[in-house]
Amino acid sequence: MKALEERILKDGQVRPGHILKVDSFLNHQMDIPFINEIGKEFKRVFADRQVDKILTIEASGIGIACITAQYFGVPVVFAKKAQSINLDGDQYTAKVQSYTHNKTYDVILTKKYLSEGEHVLVIDDFLANGCAARGLIEIIEESGAILEGVGIVIEKGFQEGGKDLRARGINLKSLAIIKSMSDDGLEFEELDY
Amino acid sequence: MKALEERILKDGQVRPGHILKVDSFLNHQMDIPFINEIGKEFKRVFADRQVDKILTIEASGIGIACITAQYFGVPVVFAKKAQSINLDGDQYTAKVQSYTHNKTYDVILTKKYLSEGEHVLVIDDFLANGCAARGLIEIIEESGAILEGVGIVIEKGFQEGGKDLRARGINLKSLAIIKSMSDDGLEFEELDY
Repeated sequence: MKALEERILKDGQVRPGHILKVDSFLNHQMDIPFINEIGKEFKRVFADRQVDKILTIEASGIGIACITAQYFGVPVVFAKKAQSINLDGDQYTAKVQSYTHNKTYDVILTKKYLSEGEHVLVIDDFLANGCAARGLIEIIEESGAILEGVGIVIEKGFQEGGKDLRARGINLKSLAIIKSMSDDGLEFEELDY
Repeated sequence: MKALEERILKDGQVRPGHILKVDSFLNHQMDIPFINEIGKEFKRVFADRQVDKILTIEASGIGIACITAQYFGVPVVFAKKAQSINLDGDQYTAKVQSYTHNKTYDVILTKKYLSEGEHVLVIDDFLANGCAARGLIEIIEESGAILEGVGIVIEKGFQEGGKDLRARGINLKSLAIIKSMSDDGLEFEELDY
């Protein structure tokens, strides 16, 4: 998505440790008209898929998922992060390793909000190591729902998450894929969608 | 908002300890067309106010704030919850007591996303004791921004948060105010807006 690449180049800030800050428009302050354009683009790239529900994870995925859901005409369900949980049997759970925060947390989703046979699109803001996405996919598999695709706003293509998901045959489409990132600048991969 | 009261009566579940679960449509699974109606209603009740930015807090406020922001044509900024933070000087912080989780956490907001003189509307899903709202208001006061109002989807009118904010002269408008709640049912306060 050219407008996204341009926005990242204009407003993104590269920090030591391969950190890309885009919190002026995407995941702290949110430029809503721009996120509407992102939502329309997700609809375009997943137009051939049946989508009954959008699944995301708190916190920064939620706003993007809600705006995007308007273009699909479907509800959103967001998985919650918890460090300790009561396993009362009515929740799906998956363990997720966070490299950013150097800890493991549980991702939980109330079972009745994801059902066997439902067609699900996963939406999130970032994909790096892919831990959060794998947690969501684990929950989808446990539920018997059908994963139609994973839509990511910004993928760090030099980390393993994207390669791993594509190797598993998952229909992953990121709207911008960063090939390399340094103080000298950013380079994006060419997209064929 | 009549449609909201009806939806709470239809889909809300009262649990022991004055817990109202509305996670089938508002804060776990999200009924996006319905949340669009909520966004339009916030625009109606705050139509007389200048709003430059919507402020909310992660996680469940974010989606509602993003949908609502479309009707105001403004950006959203969401405060983050953190249990421990690096005070590097470029963040506003406030301490918030969570009764639900029985702990205190820090609410943080990057300073450059809230500026002196900006007109701010606070949006959140629930108001009970008002701790989260007070944390956001503290940050607004520290920034020098102007608080134009607080818009809440569901207020527990039998708890202290709403009374406290109104006593301080804050322009609080909740779309549904629960007067009483028990196994026998819910009662709502009449609204004059």
